[in-house]
Amino acid sequence: MWTSADYSYMAHALQLAERGLNTTSPNPRVGCVIVNHGRIVGEGWHQRAGEAHAEVHALLAAGEHARGATAYVTLEPCSHFGRTPPCADALIHAGVSRVIAAMQDPNPQVAGNGLARLQAAGIATSSGLLEAQAQQLNRGFIQRMTLKRPWITLKTAASLDGKTALSSGESKWITGGPARLDVHRLRARSCAILTGIGTVLADDPSLNVRDIATTRQPLKIIVDSQLRTPLHATILKQPGTIIAHNCTDMSRQTALIATGAELIHVVDETPQINLPALMVFLAQRGINEIMTEAGAILNAALIQADLVDEWVMYVAPTLLGNDARGLFALPQPDNMAARRKLNLTDTRLIGTDLRITAQFTRD
Amino acid sequence: MWTSADYSYMAHALQLAERGLNTTSPNPRVGCVIVNHGRIVGEGWHQRAGEAHAEVHALLAAGEHARGATAYVTLEPCSHFGRTPPCADALIHAGVSRVIAAMQDPNPQVAGNGLARLQAAGIATSSGLLEAQAQQLNRGFIQRMTLKRPWITLKTAASLDGKTALSSGESKWITGGPARLDVHRLRARSCAILTGIGTVLADDPSLNVRDIATTRQPLKIIVDSQLRTPLHATILKQPGTIIAHNCTDMSRQTALIATGAELIHVVDETPQINLPALMVFLAQRGINEIMTEAGAILNAALIQADLVDEWVMYVAPTLLGNDARGLFALPQPDNMAARRKLNLTDTRLIGTDLRITAQFTRD
Repeated sequence: MWTSADYSYMAHALQLAERGLNTTSPNPRVGCVIVNHGRIVGEGWHQRAGEAHAEVHALLAAGEHARGATAYVTLEPCSHFGRTPPCADALIHAGVSRVIAAMQDPNPQVAGNGLARLQAAGIATSSGLLEAQAQQLNRGFIQRMTLKRPWITLKTAASLDGKTALSSGESKWITGGPARLDVHRLRARSCAILTGIGTVLADDPSLNVRDIATTRQPLKIIVDSQLRTPLHATILKQPGTIIAHNCTDMSRQTALIATGAELIHVVDETPQINLPALMVFLAQRGINEIMTEAGAILNAALIQADLVDEWVMYVAPTLLGNDARGLFALPQPDNMAARRKLNLTDTRLIGTDLRITAQFTRD
Repeated sequence: MWTSADYSYMAHALQLAERGLNTTSPNPRVGCVIVNHGRIVGEGWHQRAGEAHAEVHALLAAGEHARGATAYVTLEPCSHFGRTPPCADALIHAGVSRVIAAMQDPNPQVAGNGLARLQAAGIATSSGLLEAQAQQLNRGFIQRMTLKRPWITLKTAASLDGKTALSSGESKWITGGPARLDVHRLRARSCAILTGIGTVLADDPSLNVRDIATTRQPLKIIVDSQLRTPLHATILKQPGTIIAHNCTDMSRQTALIATGAELIHVVDETPQINLPALMVFLAQRGINEIMTEAGAILNAALIQADLVDEWVMYVAPTLLGNDARGLFALPQPDNMAARRKLNLTDTRLIGTDLRITAQFTRD
């Protein structure tokens, strides 16, 4: 169905899409390549929500050469008026004769409509070329569209014996510089970094992106049911912090709002934050991908609520001993058969540390 | 100094040597290739102590073609009468004109003597070709010769959160079939498997090699200071079990000896077994490589005694929780700067599990 040239052009479109890795949210990352008579006549990628889509950039570059050409897009062209006009119409207007999409729009209410609109205009369409790669690139966007919650990557840094800090709390630094830089790379692609009040009180982190060039800082979200975040906390010194709480103390609310933080009251019967409800809210806010950098308690609560999709664990070649702090405050399964299962998806050395990536399985 | 052909022939000699991986102890694994006018005229490897050395096999195959040939040997040819005559003399007698060794004999009392003997007979010699590979192949033999103790590989099987069993003791099976088969491969190359009385009482293991073709079963060594090993223990049903103890109960000693076990009384002031003394004894017995399959207490004691060279950890993609059993009953370091450091040397997937290999560093 597709030629090796088709694969090659789509792979190039995916590379273009990836240039928007850190900036397109809440939109997906999309790339487009327009090919006429075996020559790339235009290419583009989506850079930022509210600005032109990938297809528009590519068509602009192609100009009259778009007529009779094939357009390779990493996501089905849109058929609706959002902040910009429908890309399907732009492709029709430019006179392309064929459109190949890597995947359909994951939004179940629109999936296929863009391609149908193109077909109705007499354009040959197909979808599914390098689909797995395209899905991987926008897994957060897809999950938000289909499951109404963000993709959550849980990050930990621990020793080979699974310890994150000494019992004193000392943890700087288990891992080396290259691993810590890799964390900033993961932060940069995330829409938000999630942490707990325990980490804020213990480490006073900034959770912003450093040492990586990016035009966007992720939001910071603190799970802090009782609003114990100190007014002078480092995390409040930069804009873009959301505190999820369940606290009725108005003076405390007022004081924190005065620092510039946004407060989200997650009402629930229990004193703990209802994490699934928080995730629904964050999805509605357009958050595709969240990275959590939290302690053993919030990590365990997220895992037990079945909200974690992926675990990126940085493992330092050291031993911290029995009394050091563990990864997750999780109860043990009743027996081995009932244990939680994950799939290892990647392992690699980062400097002198090991990075293991595993995905949680859902039955 | 060496040509690419030299490298290629030595690599072949190393592959031959590796055929003796499970059988040569207490001798080293050695391979030999004899090349005359760009053609392999003889090759051989050492198979079993007391039988012919690699050079003798290769010379026998080469016959008259050995005259004027180059011999590639993975270890300096011996110059002394052991259970077989010196290989250096055999090479001289066969009329080879050049001998290339991957490494010198690690025994400091003989290192270089074999090559010197060849040189004195007018044969061109050199050493060091693929030396690191040759050292890796015989790291146990080298350590026994130079440090007078065996190479110890510590093996663990644990979850991603560093747990080896549920608090109930249930641990079958954390890892999958391919990982467990890999353990048998490691057992097969070991001269001995070391375990503790806790593991014998809890799991009643056999610690023998299964599902791997081998003509030799490793010795089994139980660290059992008070001679608590049950007389009906599975490990006593096969020959070749040594119990290291520090117990003066003569009736207990007599009963265990009657099962066919060998008892080693490691005399020490403390009730625990003096592990460094035990290792000196085992080295004197010709044990090159030991694999330990033990619990958190003996594992920690070996690490604290600085006796562990390598750690092979099988990591299953699962979580067992906070109350499950940890890897090592180790105290934590006073601070992060004082933590024990290891070097990661290999990571790979074995079935659906991860195998991480790390070596302990010594300052």
